[in-house]
Amino acid sequence: MKNRGLLIIVSAPSGCGKGTILAEILKDKAYHFSVSATTRPPREGEIDGVNYHFISKAEFEDIIEKGGMLEYATYCDNYYGTPKQQVEGMLDKGKNVLLEIEVQGAMQMREICPEGVLIFINPPTISELQRRLKKRGTESDEVINARIEQARKEMKYANEYDYIIVNDRLEKAIKDFKSIIRAEELSTKKNKMKKTEAESC
Amino acid sequence: MKNRGLLIIVSAPSGCGKGTILAEILKDKAYHFSVSATTRPPREGEIDGVNYHFISKAEFEDIIEKGGMLEYATYCDNYYGTPKQQVEGMLDKGKNVLLEIEVQGAMQMREICPEGVLIFINPPTISELQRRLKKRGTESDEVINARIEQARKEMKYANEYDYIIVNDRLEKAIKDFKSIIRAEELSTKKNKMKKTEAESC
Repeated sequence: MKNRGLLIIVSAPSGCGKGTILAEILKDKAYHFSVSATTRPPREGEIDGVNYHFISKAEFEDIIEKGGMLEYATYCDNYYGTPKQQVEGMLDKGKNVLLEIEVQGAMQMREICPEGVLIFINPPTISELQRRLKKRGTESDEVINARIEQARKEMKYANEYDYIIVNDRLEKAIKDFKSIIRAEELSTKKNKMKKTEAESC
Repeated sequence: MKNRGLLIIVSAPSGCGKGTILAEILKDKAYHFSVSATTRPPREGEIDGVNYHFISKAEFEDIIEKGGMLEYATYCDNYYGTPKQQVEGMLDKGKNVLLEIEVQGAMQMREICPEGVLIFINPPTISELQRRLKKRGTESDEVINARIEQARKEMKYANEYDYIIVNDRLEKAIKDFKSIIRAEELSTKKNKMKKTEAESC
């Protein structure tokens, strides 16, 4: 019998290199990236099933009604959420499922799926984050400042996660990520939870 | 300020390759191996401070009385124990302290030091363990059978540890060990424990 995979929930302020780290991790076929669903229309270049599952409001509400969203939130009159079925199926197949969600969603997931592994990726320092965002050269100072402010808010939640990775060197951060997953695979926590709690995810 | 090191408690049935794994880990100067104290006389070839700290019964009882043993047990009228001071000092210096103790001692440690990391090393299978013990060629079938029986008993406790490493390939087992330690270093558990529990070790 194949072991159930791990549910891994990752959050990070914008500019922390989260995308690069996850891309590297996802090269390993033992991982599956869970694509969120949304009711907002696709932006230019966005692909259905890659960036998001773009679905209608009626479809989204139908899934909610049937208890099919692990977590969801509304933002600017649009729904964003994690469809349960997709996650469930992959976990049962023994895949480690990666969810990239923001802090509020992650805190919801912690309640819903206590067996989930919550990882927060931190920039080395706020000033380094500022430097990285400026280096991109795609955003105005105002937007960068807003992002920094947002990062500060999010970083306050870091200690609520199970692990904190500081991305000061990319190779180290990737290695740290892999160490966490391997340790979780070797942990007896899952066996103990099975005895005391029903699997909720 | 240097972070406090991790207290790592390792148990394994005889013949699981624990010694080889620990020797490899201890090449890293970030680790300190905690040598147990005993009142039994040294055997031929045993060195004081390497195999054990050989101390008198009066000295041992004096340490117990002053609350200076983290855990101790008596076996064949001799004391065996882990002196607190040595462990404490190294943890404060930021070293990861390795304790190699048997199952009963480890279960004591779990109560005394909830922040300790308990690792159990399993053989791939009982028959493989049998093969390894026979290959050594140093023990009679009777002794081997007694060891196997002992291993079976100890392995029943494996799930009480935080992690189980299966030593089917030495390089993998060493890598797994390192992954666990790194993950524990990145874990927020210690920060949370500091808030809720006094550091007992």
